[in-house]
Amino acid sequence: MTAKSQHYWGADALDILRVGEGFVLSGVDPESAPGHPGGKVQGQADLATGLEQLDEYQERLFAQSRADATHASVLLVLQAMDSAGKGGIVRHVVGAVDPQGVMLTAFKKPTSQELAHDFLWRIRKRVPTPGMIGVFDRSHYEDVLIGKVRSLAPADEIERRYDAINAFEKELTDAGTRVVKVMLHISYDEQRTRLMERLDRPDKHWKYNPGDVDEREMWPHYMDAYQTVFERTSTEHAPWYVVPANRKWYARLAVQTLLLETLEGIDPQWPAATFDVETEKKRLAAT
Amino acid sequence: MTAKSQHYWGADALDILRVGEGFVLSGVDPESAPGHPGGKVQGQADLATGLEQLDEYQERLFAQSRADATHASVLLVLQAMDSAGKGGIVRHVVGAVDPQGVMLTAFKKPTSQELAHDFLWRIRKRVPTPGMIGVFDRSHYEDVLIGKVRSLAPADEIERRYDAINAFEKELTDAGTRVVKVMLHISYDEQRTRLMERLDRPDKHWKYNPGDVDEREMWPHYMDAYQTVFERTSTEHAPWYVVPANRKWYARLAVQTLLLETLEGIDPQWPAATFDVETEKKRLAAT
Repeated sequence: MTAKSQHYWGADALDILRVGEGFVLSGVDPESAPGHPGGKVQGQADLATGLEQLDEYQERLFAQSRADATHASVLLVLQAMDSAGKGGIVRHVVGAVDPQGVMLTAFKKPTSQELAHDFLWRIRKRVPTPGMIGVFDRSHYEDVLIGKVRSLAPADEIERRYDAINAFEKELTDAGTRVVKVMLHISYDEQRTRLMERLDRPDKHWKYNPGDVDEREMWPHYMDAYQTVFERTSTEHAPWYVVPANRKWYARLAVQTLLLETLEGIDPQWPAATFDVETEKKRLAAT
Repeated sequence: MTAKSQHYWGADALDILRVGEGFVLSGVDPESAPGHPGGKVQGQADLATGLEQLDEYQERLFAQSRADATHASVLLVLQAMDSAGKGGIVRHVVGAVDPQGVMLTAFKKPTSQELAHDFLWRIRKRVPTPGMIGVFDRSHYEDVLIGKVRSLAPADEIERRYDAINAFEKELTDAGTRVVKVMLHISYDEQRTRLMERLDRPDKHWKYNPGDVDEREMWPHYMDAYQTVFERTSTEHAPWYVVPANRKWYARLAVQTLLLETLEGIDPQWPAATFDVETEKKRLAAT
């Protein structure tokens, strides 16, 4: 298989979108489409092509793990401000592969039971098993984002968490999980437009919560908290990727490409038969 | 919304396919397409139409549950002999709706921990929460199918399980879960063809297991065990549906229609806003 990225992107999305040294979030234009100059129509066509490739990669990875031939798995971590499009990624990118190969978890406000444990307790229970694509819709990063902005934990505990996260993610990658951490980056104005649309449409009211505006009022604090997250946790083993997300087609294509390139790195193969094929054909034919 | 079933089926699939009194499994032709005389091309077009409806029903149900406006959920139980097409149902019917609204569990051979508990222990942990569509790929019925055919438990324990299952499913339906139990019914010859295809294609070898032929050799015993399951557990509150499955397009369409009609019965509505829309518009516009 040849990865999509080699056809449509000037370079690997894993390089273009990666948060490296000296990265400054405010320097990223949420309207931009780095790596994909083709525009919306081309982008949507590319998305459709990529879905087929993602589908095959996922099945190969799953097949290999069933034959005990790999420990590899993928964990896609999605973080973003409200309405940035996490749900659309889950639906249109992740939703295109076989549900049998996906472990999706939407992390909500922690329950009292969860709060009684370390912040990684509920996270650990949902890491993908071999062969699976795990998806976190929000994640342990909430504990250093809203956790910090809203002072839900003492400053020294927040401080401790960055290192705990790095150690945790190192464990994961050492065990064979590719961790792909994505922040979908929309602009302050775009968020107003999207939230207003939810208010305008009765079939979208359920997605709106008055608390969304409260969080929106803390926007600069959130951007600062994200900047710190990037500085403290965009590691060699588990880097962050910031995806400009004002254009939905671009954000979906970019995340799909990050997944495709990650799977390409694993390069899963159909496992060899663990039985003698000719013998089995004879046994079966005799029935 | 108008359900698909009213357009394409002569009567409700929930009636046509239901296992009622006097049902005899051997009287069902796996090649047949009851309720849908249109053939494959029409069937595939209907499947595409139905997917959009299923998608909207699922989102409404999910939305309503988020607003605490319903306890309803759906549980699709899939049982079948190997290669009958459970995976295809999960992928092409269930896989077409938003993954955020689906709880899928593939029950494998029980672990030693699971065996140390009652057979329903692992099942209870995976029943759908309100608003969700739960899917069991295999289920507690394995414990009275392979459990019986292979004598994995004493006869009186198997006997006890039918009643335990009925009581358990009554609990579920009393709590608001619609339980849709489907057996995909293929013929003995069709299974040979499908298993042979797995042996013919290296990219399908991983789906084949020599044990599949061992189970196949017990075919008549399995058919008897299914017949008993239907007699003992096709109840008023949680009836069985037998879906002829030699034609994949038909099986998928039939299961989709069973789900559509079930959701139609729930009739989920977009929940009313729990906030004052005009006030929120003003608050948002001021940011």
